[in-house]
Amino acid sequence: MKLNELGEFGLIKRLVDKLPEYGRDVIVGPGDDVAVLRTSSDKYLLATIDSQVEGIHFLFEYTGARQLGEKAIAINVSDIASMGGQPRHALVSLALPDSCQLKLVEELYEGIYSASHAYGLDVIGGNISSSRSGLLVDVCLLGEVEPEHLVLRSGAAPGDGIYVTGWLGSSAAGFELLCSKLRNCDERIWEELTSSHLTPKARLYEARSLVATGAVSAMIDISDGLISDLGHILEASGVGAVVYTDRLPIATAVREVASTLGKDALRWALSGGEDYELLLTGDRRVLDGIASDNGLGGTPLTLIGEILPQSAGLQLEGLNDASILSKGWDHFKR
Amino acid sequence: MKLNELGEFGLIKRLVDKLPEYGRDVIVGPGDDVAVLRTSSDKYLLATIDSQVEGIHFLFEYTGARQLGEKAIAINVSDIASMGGQPRHALVSLALPDSCQLKLVEELYEGIYSASHAYGLDVIGGNISSSRSGLLVDVCLLGEVEPEHLVLRSGAAPGDGIYVTGWLGSSAAGFELLCSKLRNCDERIWEELTSSHLTPKARLYEARSLVATGAVSAMIDISDGLISDLGHILEASGVGAVVYTDRLPIATAVREVASTLGKDALRWALSGGEDYELLLTGDRRVLDGIASDNGLGGTPLTLIGEILPQSAGLQLEGLNDASILSKGWDHFKR
Repeated sequence: MKLNELGEFGLIKRLVDKLPEYGRDVIVGPGDDVAVLRTSSDKYLLATIDSQVEGIHFLFEYTGARQLGEKAIAINVSDIASMGGQPRHALVSLALPDSCQLKLVEELYEGIYSASHAYGLDVIGGNISSSRSGLLVDVCLLGEVEPEHLVLRSGAAPGDGIYVTGWLGSSAAGFELLCSKLRNCDERIWEELTSSHLTPKARLYEARSLVATGAVSAMIDISDGLISDLGHILEASGVGAVVYTDRLPIATAVREVASTLGKDALRWALSGGEDYELLLTGDRRVLDGIASDNGLGGTPLTLIGEILPQSAGLQLEGLNDASILSKGWDHFKR
Repeated sequence: MKLNELGEFGLIKRLVDKLPEYGRDVIVGPGDDVAVLRTSSDKYLLATIDSQVEGIHFLFEYTGARQLGEKAIAINVSDIASMGGQPRHALVSLALPDSCQLKLVEELYEGIYSASHAYGLDVIGGNISSSRSGLLVDVCLLGEVEPEHLVLRSGAAPGDGIYVTGWLGSSAAGFELLCSKLRNCDERIWEELTSSHLTPKARLYEARSLVATGAVSAMIDISDGLISDLGHILEASGVGAVVYTDRLPIATAVREVASTLGKDALRWALSGGEDYELLLTGDRRVLDGIASDNGLGGTPLTLIGEILPQSAGLQLEGLNDASILSKGWDHFKR
C-alpha cells in the first residue's frame, strides 16, 4: 500500500497501534502534539519534534533563511504552548545540501537564536548532516508544565464554549499572495499576510494566561486547519460540536485578498492551516469574560462554537458547501 | 563561502560561537555529543539528536528498513551511553517520499521499536512529513544520569590510559564488503562485518559498568573514527596523547577482508568511523584490571595508548603514513 492511499493520520494511527506498552512515567505518549513525562521534579517534562522540509514546507523562492529559522522554533513553541507549557530547551538537527552557502546557514541560525530568545528558551544541542537534495531542519523542543496547568485534547465536554485566539486564514492568504506574486497589492497588507505565513508567532503568552484561569478543558494549536484540528479535539474527547462560521475571526486584509484573487476567505479560515492560533474549549463563565474584555494582552479571543454530545457530529452553521469538511493538510493525501 | 571549504566541524564551531549565553540549568550545551540539564530531580537530564539521511548515511540497496530503524536508535543510545547515562525516551521525526510504501515504514518502525525495547527506552512521540526526495529519520533521545556518573570529553589528564571497547574497523570493513559485492567471501565473515555496519550495537551496558567504577575521566563514542574522536577528547581536555597502533583491537575477519580487497585494515581502525565503540580515558590502576579480567560481560576492553601533556600533540606510534591523521568523517569535507 502506498502512503497516499493511507494518508498521514492513517499512517500515524497504524504506527501508534503497534507501539509497545510504555513506562508509567509516560503520561501522554504518541498521538498528541507533545509527549508528557512524569519526572521526579514537581513539573511535568514536555517533549515535541517538528520539521521544515524544503519543497514541502517552504521554498527559498519565498522565504528567507532567517525567517525559516524563526518559524522552525515558533511552530514547536506553539505545540508546547498548546499543552499549557513553557518551552525551555531546543535541539536542532539540520540536513544541508553540499552546495549550501555558509551565509544561508548562519542566517538560519540567526533566526533560530532570535526566536529562541524571544520565547525564553535555550538552544542546547543539535546535529548537522549533509543531504542529497534540499534542506531540512528538525527542531526537538523540551518544555515543562505545572501538572495543574497541563491541558490535553481530551478534556472537552458538552456545554463548553469553543474559542480561537487571533485571526484565522491569514497564513493561507499570505501563502496565496506569495504564489500569486500580486506585488501591486497594498504593501501593508502584503507585509501583514505574508509574515503570518513566513514567520507565524506562537501564542505562548496567551496560552499560559488561559491555562492559569483553570477554565480551559482542551486545547490544540491550529497547524493543519481549524476543521482538522477541531476534529482531533472531538475525537480525543468523544464529543461533537457546532461551529458558527459567521463568527470566525477573519482579518479584513484576508477578505480583501480573497476577493481580489477570486478565492474563498471562509475556506482559508476553516482549512487553510498554519495559522498557529490556539483552538480551545472551556468554561464559558470565565472565557466569555476574557473574550469580551480583550483580556489576553491585546490578542482577541473569539467564541466560535459550542461542544455538543458526540451524536451531534460536527455541524458547521452558516456553511453551504459541505465539501470543505474533508479538507485540511495531510502530508500524503493531497 | 561554501560549506565544503569550512567543513562540518568548522561550521559547528562558527554556529556555537554565535550562540547566545544560556541558562544556568544547562550544564553542557552545544559542542558535546549530548546536552546535559540540571533539573529539580536528583539526576541530570540528557538530550541528543542524530539523523540518518538516504544517500548520505545509507542506501536501500544495502540496508533493510528494519535495520535502518535499529541503527537510528542505536547511534543515539551510543551518544547517551558515552556520557555515562541511561536512555529513557525517544522522539522520531520522519521525512518520507510520497512514493514510499507502507510496508517500508512499518518495517522501519519495527526496527525502532525492537531496538528501543532492547535498550530499555520508550518511543514517546514523533512527527511525519513528506519529502521531495529520499527518506530521513531523525531521532531525539532523552536520558538521565546520576551526577556522579556523568563523564564528559573534557576530563582526560596526563598519565591516564586510553582504552577502547570491542573492535575497531569492523564497520568500515562491512561497508567496503557491501560496496564490493564480494559475495563469494565466507558467509560468517560477511554476516559479522556487514552487520557491524548496518546494525551497530551501542555499548550501553559497558558504559554504565565503566562509569560505575569511578575510574573513567573522559569518554566518547567512535562515530567519526578513532583519530577524529580522540581529537575531540584531546581538544576538550587540553592534552596530548600517544596511541600504540599495534595494539588496536582489529578482528581477524577485518584483516582478512582488507587483504582480499587490497585495503589497509589499520586505516579502517584509525579513521573508518561508525564503529560505535567507546573510547575512554582513565585510571590505569582500575581499568587495566577490567581489561585483563575481561570484566565487561565478554566485551573486550583494550589499552591503546596514554594521555600526555598538550605539548606532545597526538603521536601514532608504529605508523609510517602520517596522512591518515587528517582523515575522519566530515559531512562537508570529503
